[in-house]
Amino acid sequence: MKIEKGGVTAAKGFLAASAEAQIKYKGRPDMALVYTGRPAVFAGTFTTNVVKAAPVWWDKELLEKKKKVHAVVLNSGIANAATGKEGRKLNYFMAQAVAEQIGAEPEEVLTASTGVIGMQLKEEPLASGAALLKEALADTAEAGTRAAEAIMTTDTVSKEAAASFEADGVTVTVGGMCKGSGMIHPNMATMLSVTTTDADIDGDVLQELVSEIVSDSFNMISVDRDTSTNDTYLVLANGASGVKIEKGTEAYENFREALAYVSTELAKKMAGDGEGCTKLMEVQVINCESREKAKILSRSVTTSNLVKTAFYGSDANYGRILCALGYAGVDFDPEKLDLTLEAGGESLLLVKDGVETGYSEEKATELLSQEKVAFICDMKEGECSATAWGCDLTYDYVKINGDYRS
Amino acid sequence: MKIEKGGVTAAKGFLAASAEAQIKYKGRPDMALVYTGRPAVFAGTFTTNVVKAAPVWWDKELLEKKKKVHAVVLNSGIANAATGKEGRKLNYFMAQAVAEQIGAEPEEVLTASTGVIGMQLKEEPLASGAALLKEALADTAEAGTRAAEAIMTTDTVSKEAAASFEADGVTVTVGGMCKGSGMIHPNMATMLSVTTTDADIDGDVLQELVSEIVSDSFNMISVDRDTSTNDTYLVLANGASGVKIEKGTEAYENFREALAYVSTELAKKMAGDGEGCTKLMEVQVINCESREKAKILSRSVTTSNLVKTAFYGSDANYGRILCALGYAGVDFDPEKLDLTLEAGGESLLLVKDGVETGYSEEKATELLSQEKVAFICDMKEGECSATAWGCDLTYDYVKINGDYRS
Repeated sequence: MKIEKGGVTAAKGFLAASAEAQIKYKGRPDMALVYTGRPAVFAGTFTTNVVKAAPVWWDKELLEKKKKVHAVVLNSGIANAATGKEGRKLNYFMAQAVAEQIGAEPEEVLTASTGVIGMQLKEEPLASGAALLKEALADTAEAGTRAAEAIMTTDTVSKEAAASFEADGVTVTVGGMCKGSGMIHPNMATMLSVTTTDADIDGDVLQELVSEIVSDSFNMISVDRDTSTNDTYLVLANGASGVKIEKGTEAYENFREALAYVSTELAKKMAGDGEGCTKLMEVQVINCESREKAKILSRSVTTSNLVKTAFYGSDANYGRILCALGYAGVDFDPEKLDLTLEAGGESLLLVKDGVETGYSEEKATELLSQEKVAFICDMKEGECSATAWGCDLTYDYVKINGDYRS
Repeated sequence: MKIEKGGVTAAKGFLAASAEAQIKYKGRPDMALVYTGRPAVFAGTFTTNVVKAAPVWWDKELLEKKKKVHAVVLNSGIANAATGKEGRKLNYFMAQAVAEQIGAEPEEVLTASTGVIGMQLKEEPLASGAALLKEALADTAEAGTRAAEAIMTTDTVSKEAAASFEADGVTVTVGGMCKGSGMIHPNMATMLSVTTTDADIDGDVLQELVSEIVSDSFNMISVDRDTSTNDTYLVLANGASGVKIEKGTEAYENFREALAYVSTELAKKMAGDGEGCTKLMEVQVINCESREKAKILSRSVTTSNLVKTAFYGSDANYGRILCALGYAGVDFDPEKLDLTLEAGGESLLLVKDGVETGYSEEKATELLSQEKVAFICDMKEGECSATAWGCDLTYDYVKINGDYRS
């Protein structure tokens, strides 16, 4: 596998565009389009929230019908959630407006929205936005980046990742973009992600792979435990490389690796760009009796407000980590637990067999002040492990969310 | 039932005291004692955290043995959690030091600790603290209040409540104190609470009642979703009123009412004194198909960081409330939901049948700026309801927890 630059336009045959449609924001792009002339099979996972946004219902329906698609249209500013029948009509309007521009059926256009819940979209900016998008379509890396920028809300940086591999001398590429900063929590993050690939793969096989990969990447990050109404992860495969990906082959394993890499990179970029956050927290639970249990434990730590605030203050308050493990809802022996802090290539054992080691507070603070810090929880009870990612909880998180709508 | 002033010394035969033992804090009381000469049956509920503090193990053991007790000794500053065998030894030392002073067995002394996790207690301050406590014991309201003050950590006010009722012309009193401000979350809050009563009640009957009441009071509050290692709720009944409380009698119902009142008041005082918080949030879920479901939904709203920050900013961001209901983990029809804001005797319908009503933002902000605000979620699907309490998430929460240990 080779790590590539770029995002949704990295794979052959995919074009992208952004537009300033003025849906809610002014003076910045707020609509994005990902397009493939060659129809693509697609797979997706969506929010588990009971309150689902109109575009989520739409995409789920197209997925059930196993439609091939030509495009994904995304808007930022208005989430089109809690908007009732009118919201569903406007979502259809958005798909239709793009379909007309690209000469396709509305059922060949996936949709995604992010922004304020409850507010209605309006037809006019969507129609003129669709026209602008069509005009701006390009297969360049820049066009992919512009699309990634257009879907940002409280994100501070745009997020892209890509990877490729060779199969019989032919390059297959996987590239994606995502947005997500607040309302980020497992199953799924408040995130929109579109990944494209020129692999030739069956829709059902792709769906199986996507469901598997999402549970180790996007579902392992948390900014604030709030699962949104709009979470959407779409993977489009247009087959333009001509490389057939079938289960049990080396190409399949390479494809899985590339897709997992892109998903995990995008997920980590979201956790590291959590609203108001200053650093990335990685929690590894190792030597656990089951992988499921390791996931539950690691996520309990990344989602604790008390761990997150202590992390912000670079305070080695290991007691809060033990506490968060303890209320995760699974059983373990606290007096077996070792806890190690790791950052910048150095490591420090904080807790041995459930009791403090007498470590240097100064050293701990030095490690905790770095941009990426790992907590390794050794359960000493089995052979399974899992990793979750999160961030610190800061004044700025409160500021950003105390006046988001105003 | 009559609402009374006072706390743990309100009921006949109970004395209390505080002492400056200098366990960790200097210049403020950090040990408290509640004492009854007449041995008391007791009931209790404890943290569900796997990592349990030494005093929790001790009290649970005494409860299983159905011991009658003479005292509860509490300390603030050091939680005696994640302290291994040495911690259990020091907890026993604390019970023993008090037992010696009051002329009882260590097994007749309950213990409770709150403060930093991981740090070890020391013998000396505990021994001299026990002597100071013995000396200061008094049955006055002031002594009760001093005990309530001595168990505070990041609390900004001490918390007491009491109530009484008449049975055949004799007054029966229930009075309690608690502390809790951070690490507050259902099952149970990071809280210590001791309630005393002069009712004459069987220990098993009392335990049943306490378990029932705690699920509607202490378990319905949340400050930050962190369930602590030390949560302890103890109720001591010494029978000094001479009034026998038996199931199926009017006195039993009156006793239940008084105990429920004291528990709920103490719980609300904790939610309203959440770390850094500026106002109390009450979430009522009404017309729900089951009480259990109503509890889950109401707690999902009080625990959402995004709801809590919007509440801090007095922003009527109802979308975040719908979102938090949606990811609670139970099913409902979002397009049936009505959401009403209530404060200071006024109410405002924000959402009708799942869609915004076009309410006045100005009015909403005015209501949200008050000290106590209720959100009423009408599910329109049944006849059950539940209420949860929480608070806003503020800069000060981050400040308090970003440098708690330093």
